[in-house]
Amino acid sequence: MGAVAFHDALLHERDPGSGVLTDVATRLGSMDPARDLELAAKLGIRFVVPGDPEWPRQLEDLAAGGEVQGRGGPPLGLWAKGPLRLDRLLGSLAVVGSRSATTYGADVAASIGAGVARAGVPVVSGAAFGIDQAAHRGALAVDGATVAVLACGVDRAYPAAHRSLLDHLAGHGLVVSELPPGSAPTRLRFLARNRLIAALTRGTVVVEAAARSGALNTANWAGRLNRVVMGVPGPVTSAPSQGVHQLVRTGAATLVTSPEDVLELVGVSGVHLVEEPRGPERPRDRLSLRHQQVLDAVPVGQPVHADSISRTAGLSLSDTGNALVRLRALGLVDADGDGWRLAALAHR
Amino acid sequence: MGAVAFHDALLHERDPGSGVLTDVATRLGSMDPARDLELAAKLGIRFVVPGDPEWPRQLEDLAAGGEVQGRGGPPLGLWAKGPLRLDRLLGSLAVVGSRSATTYGADVAASIGAGVARAGVPVVSGAAFGIDQAAHRGALAVDGATVAVLACGVDRAYPAAHRSLLDHLAGHGLVVSELPPGSAPTRLRFLARNRLIAALTRGTVVVEAAARSGALNTANWAGRLNRVVMGVPGPVTSAPSQGVHQLVRTGAATLVTSPEDVLELVGVSGVHLVEEPRGPERPRDRLSLRHQQVLDAVPVGQPVHADSISRTAGLSLSDTGNALVRLRALGLVDADGDGWRLAALAHR
Repeated sequence: MGAVAFHDALLHERDPGSGVLTDVATRLGSMDPARDLELAAKLGIRFVVPGDPEWPRQLEDLAAGGEVQGRGGPPLGLWAKGPLRLDRLLGSLAVVGSRSATTYGADVAASIGAGVARAGVPVVSGAAFGIDQAAHRGALAVDGATVAVLACGVDRAYPAAHRSLLDHLAGHGLVVSELPPGSAPTRLRFLARNRLIAALTRGTVVVEAAARSGALNTANWAGRLNRVVMGVPGPVTSAPSQGVHQLVRTGAATLVTSPEDVLELVGVSGVHLVEEPRGPERPRDRLSLRHQQVLDAVPVGQPVHADSISRTAGLSLSDTGNALVRLRALGLVDADGDGWRLAALAHR
Repeated sequence: MGAVAFHDALLHERDPGSGVLTDVATRLGSMDPARDLELAAKLGIRFVVPGDPEWPRQLEDLAAGGEVQGRGGPPLGLWAKGPLRLDRLLGSLAVVGSRSATTYGADVAASIGAGVARAGVPVVSGAAFGIDQAAHRGALAVDGATVAVLACGVDRAYPAAHRSLLDHLAGHGLVVSELPPGSAPTRLRFLARNRLIAALTRGTVVVEAAARSGALNTANWAGRLNRVVMGVPGPVTSAPSQGVHQLVRTGAATLVTSPEDVLELVGVSGVHLVEEPRGPERPRDRLSLRHQQVLDAVPVGQPVHADSISRTAGLSLSDTGNALVRLRALGLVDADGDGWRLAALAHR
């Protein structure tokens, strides 16, 4: 089995520096690879390594991504549990944000999760409370593909309250970690995990993130890996939106407001095209300037005579008269013996 | 009197095309210039023309700004009422937005109006309900300079409910129009008025604007005149924020969340500098990676021995021991006979 050999090789090739490599290699060193893989297999967990058909090759971008405080580089392999294949994640979307999300943020995250999943784009997130959970919930609601990337072993539930969510993801989507089963989550592992979320996906949407949110770390990785970084705005009075606003303000993220916006940025080019919001076209939009001037001078209520309209419009009586006839033909003004007034069509 | 001669000359120089020039010149033509100016003076209204010391020369940018549907070009002159001088508006800020603002939008507009006015930046807006009114209210609350630019004569109150607001502005700030006293507001005049708001100011902030808001027209003018265009985000679920989000998403506007953000963009360079929001620095931020790894492995509750911490951290016992001693010196971990655990400082 290739994974066993690879796993074994790693034990003899420790990263001399400190960091994730050391961290992982050391942990691997405490285990018996063949036994570990056997044990993992019994739990339905597979170890996917570079070269496997399922290996998500976009992770190789991490090799060029540089390191931050010794964290970085591609993972040695990924422990995965669930029916979804890792190589399905090439065009996937990360939806990340605060654990302490507002109901607004959670609703938007669920809506984006559902919208992109419905369009066939897998959702990738962590397994935390708040935005992570809402993003998975949205994708699951439309039977979409969704993936949790953990900072602990995929056999562990962190937070414990998300045991059933993680079980569901392992049953229908995918739970992934670079850490072997049994590993506990630590702060550094969360930061290292964030690079995987950014690297696995084509883009990262930050839904709510206060000034020091881990989601901003994920966004930072996404930017450095040339992924699309997006941010959902919120009220400027809402602390959980502050970090997102900062990303957008500084140009680090593009503002998005809907799944359509997101798909336009991460979707297969030309497949997802967002329609620019515009007001409905009104009959008056296509009028010449002179006709608009006259129309503006026609009253809504009591009808008036053309000379009064001509004075208000600042146009000659003959120009005004010609315009009124044309406007009546368009159904925009009405005339009777008392004079002219706006038709219902013109002042909806 | 220069204004009389200028005014008179205009009467004999009608714009051959249709548009604002025709509109204004025609209306002027219906009046007796000397009598009009005398009448205006009695109402405390002055007519300021190019060449006057008070003339806001930034309006000349409109000459190069092109025309939209025949609207555009610098105004022939400005009718002004109030103690504020027009030439004070060189570094001013336009705050514009929906008439149908939410309380959120109105609060933010008032806060921006107050914040920039307090910093000495005059506020310029229309006189509509919603954002316009809130922006003036904010500036007035801090005794700041604020200006309403109207689409009718400065002697008229439109909307009528804002009679006392306009009186107050005429008494303490300024009410301005390119239309002579007595002119009625029309749709086209609102669009023409928007170009003046954009041109008079150094930048325009759009606070709330639905997809077809006049505020977007002002923002468009501001962009074409190379003014700073800014947008205040809101919930993506709020229709009045939709137009602003579109401006920011397409790069037409920069996202701003506070008066400080605005001042940074329109203020005299270097005077207003926004402080990037960041979380408070924590004691652990300056630790080496190895020390962080060890700290992450130290439990919050029950103390554990160093060898257990060493296994969790994936580091040798001697490295772990050295790190623990250092962490204790920093007050981040405590030790007693039962082992090591986090100090209160480390897990705020």
